[in-house]
Amino acid sequence: MGSVDKLISWICRLTVITAFFLIGFIIGWFARPTTVNHGHVSKSFLHDFLDEMQAENIKHHLRKFTRLPHLAGTQQNLDLAEQIRAEWMEFGLDSVELVPYDVLLSYPNKTNPNYISIVDHLGNQIFNTSLAEPVPEGYEDVTDIVPPYSAFSAKGQPEDELVYVNYGRTEDFFKLQRELGINCSGKIVIARYGKIFRGNKVKNAILAGAKGIVLFSDPADYCADGVEPYPDGWNLPGGGTQRGNVLNLNGAGDPLTPGYPAKEYTYRSSLEDAVGLPKIPVHPIGYHDAVHLLQHMGGPLPLDNWKGALNVSYRIGPGFMDGFNQNKVRMNIHTNNQVTRIYNVIGWIRGAVEPDRYVILGGHRDAWVFGGIDPVSGAAVVHESVRAAGKLMKKGWRPRRTLIFASWDAEEFGLLGSTEWAEDNARVLQERAVAYINADSAIEGMYTLRVDCTPSLHTLVYDITKKVWSPEEGEEGMSLYQSWHKRDNSTERNAPWISKLGSGSDFEAYFIRLGIASGRARYTKNRKTERYSSYPVYHNSLFSAVENFTVAAGDFHQRLDQLDTSNALAVRMVNDQLMYLERAFIDPLGLPGRPFYRHIIFAPSSHNKYAGESFPGIYDALFDIENAVDPQKAWDEVKRQISIAAFTVNAAAETLKPF
Amino acid sequence: MGSVDKLISWICRLTVITAFFLIGFIIGWFARPTTVNHGHVSKSFLHDFLDEMQAENIKHHLRKFTRLPHLAGTQQNLDLAEQIRAEWMEFGLDSVELVPYDVLLSYPNKTNPNYISIVDHLGNQIFNTSLAEPVPEGYEDVTDIVPPYSAFSAKGQPEDELVYVNYGRTEDFFKLQRELGINCSGKIVIARYGKIFRGNKVKNAILAGAKGIVLFSDPADYCADGVEPYPDGWNLPGGGTQRGNVLNLNGAGDPLTPGYPAKEYTYRSSLEDAVGLPKIPVHPIGYHDAVHLLQHMGGPLPLDNWKGALNVSYRIGPGFMDGFNQNKVRMNIHTNNQVTRIYNVIGWIRGAVEPDRYVILGGHRDAWVFGGIDPVSGAAVVHESVRAAGKLMKKGWRPRRTLIFASWDAEEFGLLGSTEWAEDNARVLQERAVAYINADSAIEGMYTLRVDCTPSLHTLVYDITKKVWSPEEGEEGMSLYQSWHKRDNSTERNAPWISKLGSGSDFEAYFIRLGIASGRARYTKNRKTERYSSYPVYHNSLFSAVENFTVAAGDFHQRLDQLDTSNALAVRMVNDQLMYLERAFIDPLGLPGRPFYRHIIFAPSSHNKYAGESFPGIYDALFDIENAVDPQKAWDEVKRQISIAAFTVNAAAETLKPF
Repeated sequence: MGSVDKLISWICRLTVITAFFLIGFIIGWFARPTTVNHGHVSKSFLHDFLDEMQAENIKHHLRKFTRLPHLAGTQQNLDLAEQIRAEWMEFGLDSVELVPYDVLLSYPNKTNPNYISIVDHLGNQIFNTSLAEPVPEGYEDVTDIVPPYSAFSAKGQPEDELVYVNYGRTEDFFKLQRELGINCSGKIVIARYGKIFRGNKVKNAILAGAKGIVLFSDPADYCADGVEPYPDGWNLPGGGTQRGNVLNLNGAGDPLTPGYPAKEYTYRSSLEDAVGLPKIPVHPIGYHDAVHLLQHMGGPLPLDNWKGALNVSYRIGPGFMDGFNQNKVRMNIHTNNQVTRIYNVIGWIRGAVEPDRYVILGGHRDAWVFGGIDPVSGAAVVHESVRAAGKLMKKGWRPRRTLIFASWDAEEFGLLGSTEWAEDNARVLQERAVAYINADSAIEGMYTLRVDCTPSLHTLVYDITKKVWSPEEGEEGMSLYQSWHKRDNSTERNAPWISKLGSGSDFEAYFIRLGIASGRARYTKNRKTERYSSYPVYHNSLFSAVENFTVAAGDFHQRLDQLDTSNALAVRMVNDQLMYLERAFIDPLGLPGRPFYRHIIFAPSSHNKYAGESFPGIYDALFDIENAVDPQKAWDEVKRQISIAAFTVNAAAETLKPF
Repeated sequence: MGSVDKLISWICRLTVITAFFLIGFIIGWFARPTTVNHGHVSKSFLHDFLDEMQAENIKHHLRKFTRLPHLAGTQQNLDLAEQIRAEWMEFGLDSVELVPYDVLLSYPNKTNPNYISIVDHLGNQIFNTSLAEPVPEGYEDVTDIVPPYSAFSAKGQPEDELVYVNYGRTEDFFKLQRELGINCSGKIVIARYGKIFRGNKVKNAILAGAKGIVLFSDPADYCADGVEPYPDGWNLPGGGTQRGNVLNLNGAGDPLTPGYPAKEYTYRSSLEDAVGLPKIPVHPIGYHDAVHLLQHMGGPLPLDNWKGALNVSYRIGPGFMDGFNQNKVRMNIHTNNQVTRIYNVIGWIRGAVEPDRYVILGGHRDAWVFGGIDPVSGAAVVHESVRAAGKLMKKGWRPRRTLIFASWDAEEFGLLGSTEWAEDNARVLQERAVAYINADSAIEGMYTLRVDCTPSLHTLVYDITKKVWSPEEGEEGMSLYQSWHKRDNSTERNAPWISKLGSGSDFEAYFIRLGIASGRARYTKNRKTERYSSYPVYHNSLFSAVENFTVAAGDFHQRLDQLDTSNALAVRMVNDQLMYLERAFIDPLGLPGRPFYRHIIFAPSSHNKYAGESFPGIYDALFDIENAVDPQKAWDEVKRQISIAAFTVNAAAETLKPF
């Protein structure tokens, strides 16, 4: 099987899994009445629905969606939105609308490009980094490719020594400052991509007092051994780098309208008061350019202790540097922030029996350039699901509950499209949303399935994957569940590993702010188990809360077994309890310093937005507590967080009681 | 009709109204299925229920509950709680429990009493205020009467000049500082009770820099012409004064556990970080003592401009004072704050058809001393409702929805019992509570009915009062609605006046924090229309939001008319929409600086907790804006608040749509 064919096969399989997710909610959450008129809902439609999913169609969607760049806020991306709306209407949805918001976006200045230079002691620029990536073959005629940049970087031309800070993680800065005695204050720092969200690197640099940060892709992280760089092989070429936003929004959405949708009439704060904008210039470069910066610069570069950084000739130990040669680095950053209109495409199928219960399938449409994997593999999944659902509707089918399909805009700029729509519809969603399923990059590796979801969906996920065949060669007749289980067994139970939801994609506002049960699925590489270890001190009161919850959940399941499913009201009551269970973990006060992260049990890590953290309040209170300035106060905060967590788990248990 | 008999007759009528409120929710919110098994719910029970309400019983409850003092946190009040639990069980409730919380209360130091003295230039105390009120006749043997004090006052013995600040309102301090040029900074101030919540007076004094505040009851406000003081008549005696808390909690509940229930395991902040405790000593005195302080003190006393203050002989104009005679006032305050266990009594009747929908009737039990009007007239209403409901249950009746009856503790200390229970059960209540009805002081005058409730209950209130007879002499055969309408017509429509909910009683957390439709009823004096005038600048966008809401409400009513009431699921759906409508006005971010006041349309006034304010965010942003230090910033905040209000009204309109 060729690699493109295999990719398509994976995407198709994920489409099926996503469809299964949907169907799980369409045909009834856990319990459902059997004698009530379902409005043509029946299990036979399950097979019809799945049979509709065609690899050929997905290939077709992929090609269609990657023909042109579709950066958020551009005409191309609006055109694509219009096209999707037209097709979804043609597929047969009840209604499809374009929902606009006016949000803060960030673009490079077209006449004044961003770059980094090395300046000698006379002030001459002796080296400048590239202004653009090499154009890929076949795309020479495509215009409007945005050059690599860090969206929402501050403008500025800081000039100073360069300090290498490894991945720019919290622990990297701790090491520099505490073990190596290196002060980043007033310096420009350079960090390699990887391990954590780039916005966290920038935040750490700001906290360390840096006045600018350069980011680069290290071949040690982005190139496999024995593979040639693109276009000869699939390794990252030396001129390639990562676009991306460097915000620290913590779930706020549009930086100018935190907590509220960015409508025309909405009050906007000033740029000074905006949420999450970095106060220093940030710029990404390729490793060919990074070599020059590192080779020609003075200042400390403690590579010895940090294995893997730029595995090239100059990496020869502490003595490698030219010495303090008076060369400096100058950043030249002219990126503009501007309020720009974006468009979500929102499609509806009205539910036949419970139209006031919503199941949402969303994925984003915008991309930095063409968006091959991110987001189009996900968008293709949504598109094919809409097509299949529409086909069935033409045969007289209608789901029990209302289905909402979303093509989000401006995900790359901080999950803006999905967050603004969540803010806009928060009241209705809190009352009515059963689940949110996210379809973003469907592929991050070729090894096995990866599912991130809330625990209340685990059983559903296992059930689904038992009904789908493994797509691996040599596993004919094996279920996807078996294949996945074989490759990635959970350490906690004899079942495949399911990850916690972190952030970095559009489910964030739905799960972490509104408490709607959420999930996502993708194909992944072999999981490394490198994670922060857990602290072992969680308090007994918390344990007793978890015990209460376990008892309440057991009682609830028993009642489910005895449920009279012919009683529509009784069924609705238990379904409401299930739907609202996730909401019970939401604390309107939010987590300390993160008012829009309101889920007490799961939140993105404070040190890496991409990772999910359990009991984040407790974790953050304990983090680095041994170095707390005021240990008494720090331990008081730990106690406070434990008490909040214990209360929240108890409160959630209460919602499972019948009255 | 004797005055006691008339009082009992009023209370009885209010019990009937409260019962009607309950019944409105028991027999179905607006719509209900007619063909579904109601579990013995029928309208004939309505009459049985009302017939059960007996004036004799209410008299009996009143006497029983006022025999002894029942201050929160004392053995007497726990004994009363036990007694109520036992009686409610006997009446026939499904279950009754005592729910404890450990909250911060405040008591005078028994061995070191509080008083105010006048100190001459040699340091001699030449006058001391009384340590206790005169004991009323017939109560000479009752011990444990707490002397007058301001609960949660700071300890301290400040000594300085005394400045008279009228009612201590925002506008009084504006007048002193801006028109009269009088600086209160570092002084002790003296304010008369009335017009606004005493905690707001204390807050204003602190903002003005005062180092202590004395409160007194002015005969101009508390004595009617031609009436003798008690015990010869019913005017306030010169030794009488107001106990009360002087917190500025803004809905936080227990000052040490804001946002979370004060359970045993809950983390408690330090007293320094507690919410709402005044940082200065506060003490209340009678007018006989106040005369001495005012007569013997120097300092400015601009009585001429403030009509009505202490209408006694020495009030002779600006020249009346002894001059700056070097006498000073010393406050001697030794009140202790201490964490103390309180007990709510919570009784349940499980609903027959929708047990997961709650209607709550609550009133507080604790009182500063005996609690004749506040709270016992309200507690008697609750008690009689429980008795009547229990009687009907013994005949086989069961309400459609679950009924919860509550006897709250520690209301006088800042609504602590009711707020802690709301915090404890916030998740469940948000999902399930249909309405909260409050029964506190049933009487604040003898003129006509006063109802404070959320607009969604207006129609219900009008319908109820049309079914009850007027209790006034000479109005035989007239409905209470007609009597009320005649006495207090609304300025906005041809119907009786209904007030906004302010604060000052136990509905606060249910309505203002959780967004549960709430109401209260009482008998009142002839309403004066003295209120802040509204600012006329509410923005057009806001108008269009209100228009959207009106259209959505109209559409919803049309759908209600066409509702197939035999479809249990369809009925539940519209009832859910009605129940959650009030929730839609809740913003988890809260109002500026008041995180626990989350209702965007109604909140207690920032300047007087007792008064309700519409669009409080906009009102506060506009308040005194002409004197803003930074007008640009102040107007920006107005715009921001208008945009939040417009969004919220639009969002609420969305929740009325069918899908």
